[in-house]
Amino acid sequence: MPGPEPITSLQNPQVKRLVRLRTRREREAQGTLLIEGARELARAVAAGLRLHTLYTCHALFSPEARAEADRLPGEVVELSRAAFEKVSGREHPDGLLGLADPPDRPLPEPGENAVVVVLHGLEKPGNVGAILRSADAAGAHAVLVLGRGADPFGPNVIRSSQGSVFQLPVAALEEDQALAWLHERAFTTVACTPDAPRDYWDAPLTGRVALLLGTEHEGLPAHWRATDHSVRIPMQPGSGADSLNVATAAALVLFECVRQNRTH
Amino acid sequence: MPGPEPITSLQNPQVKRLVRLRTRREREAQGTLLIEGARELARAVAAGLRLHTLYTCHALFSPEARAEADRLPGEVVELSRAAFEKVSGREHPDGLLGLADPPDRPLPEPGENAVVVVLHGLEKPGNVGAILRSADAAGAHAVLVLGRGADPFGPNVIRSSQGSVFQLPVAALEEDQALAWLHERAFTTVACTPDAPRDYWDAPLTGRVALLLGTEHEGLPAHWRATDHSVRIPMQPGSGADSLNVATAAALVLFECVRQNRTH
Repeated sequence: MPGPEPITSLQNPQVKRLVRLRTRREREAQGTLLIEGARELARAVAAGLRLHTLYTCHALFSPEARAEADRLPGEVVELSRAAFEKVSGREHPDGLLGLADPPDRPLPEPGENAVVVVLHGLEKPGNVGAILRSADAAGAHAVLVLGRGADPFGPNVIRSSQGSVFQLPVAALEEDQALAWLHERAFTTVACTPDAPRDYWDAPLTGRVALLLGTEHEGLPAHWRATDHSVRIPMQPGSGADSLNVATAAALVLFECVRQNRTH
Repeated sequence: MPGPEPITSLQNPQVKRLVRLRTRREREAQGTLLIEGARELARAVAAGLRLHTLYTCHALFSPEARAEADRLPGEVVELSRAAFEKVSGREHPDGLLGLADPPDRPLPEPGENAVVVVLHGLEKPGNVGAILRSADAAGAHAVLVLGRGADPFGPNVIRSSQGSVFQLPVAALEEDQALAWLHERAFTTVACTPDAPRDYWDAPLTGRVALLLGTEHEGLPAHWRATDHSVRIPMQPGSGADSLNVATAAALVLFECVRQNRTH
């Protein structure tokens, strides 16, 4: 049974709305997430997000997207190739794009060895996404994204996290909200910064630990460095590197928490 | 004193040559490196590479490129904006691009705790570049790139390594050459693979260690897994991640070598 005619007009109101939803402001105003790609949509639905509309373009389907399209919930709207390419943020779209309700669960209460990652001002979606993926792999309790850096639920972060953004609690908070949440729960705060006096493996990273990371260029603001501990990744003698990529630094400290918490 | 007229024709032989040099085959046939960007060129020259021609475009200069242009050696050839944009591999070129002789030093003999990274079949320049940057930061002895994956001296690897490719010895080798070099020098070989029986911090990573890394999707071929040790990054319970990005995994094991080798 053929479906209704696909949307072909680039002036169609739904097409224009999808284009506007590429901005964070519009996503927040409309209270919706824009999720592109078969894998990302599958992970969002597996994590319990409600997908309400699924835009498809059969002409662009990858094999994975073709299979996923039948499994995904939501009202299906077919777009012409030109319309889909207009709303896609990818160079090679796979023909699937969906709108979903944002996650609305509150941050769960932390266990005794919970690790929380706090990101301050990170702007590159690729870095935020990579940190979400590593935090998920390391079993972090949550990731808190402060201020107006990259939107953790933006399409590029979703993509570079490979869907990990849906696997663990992620919240965009104001600084004082985040600090209050951590302090009320007696987290030890650990600033990760290249000029810290102590190598990261020499700091005690058990118990409830909040790892604070700033941008590669500006680091953490002063009031975020008055923490319980401050740790660095030691650059080795003879190295030309003055620091590591922030996502690499995050992974190193996250897995040092895992190492120190292991029971065998 | 005004210089000679800039090259404006997109059919100019030098412009056409620069376009061809974007392919690895052409770079290897001509025995030249193509290095774009002020920072990358500065690091290449600081590392001792001979820059023989510097292509400039004043109309595109970033402040950093303008300052660097006066310091860099090599015959200067000015291109028009259109010509420079044609030869550039960047979305936002900074107006500097140079041709240099490839490094020709042999791999230096390793010290007693030398760590060598061996990459098998990695195709994404971003991953290879990130690994070079981490290897540099961790004081690795060398990085060996096997087979026909990403060219370690390709423009995209140079860029994503932030010039680290010039800081430490990097060699593109055939598999048997690499194995012979490592075996003759009594390296312990360590395969990094998600299905290894042992967590990476439980393996002895002191002495001469060669870390073998394959692609995220295919891993290492069987004959590269018959190694002295095989280690994994342990994914934590509840995580949705089935593996880490290969560059993240490389950084974790590299800095575990540093941790095990530290003397304090």
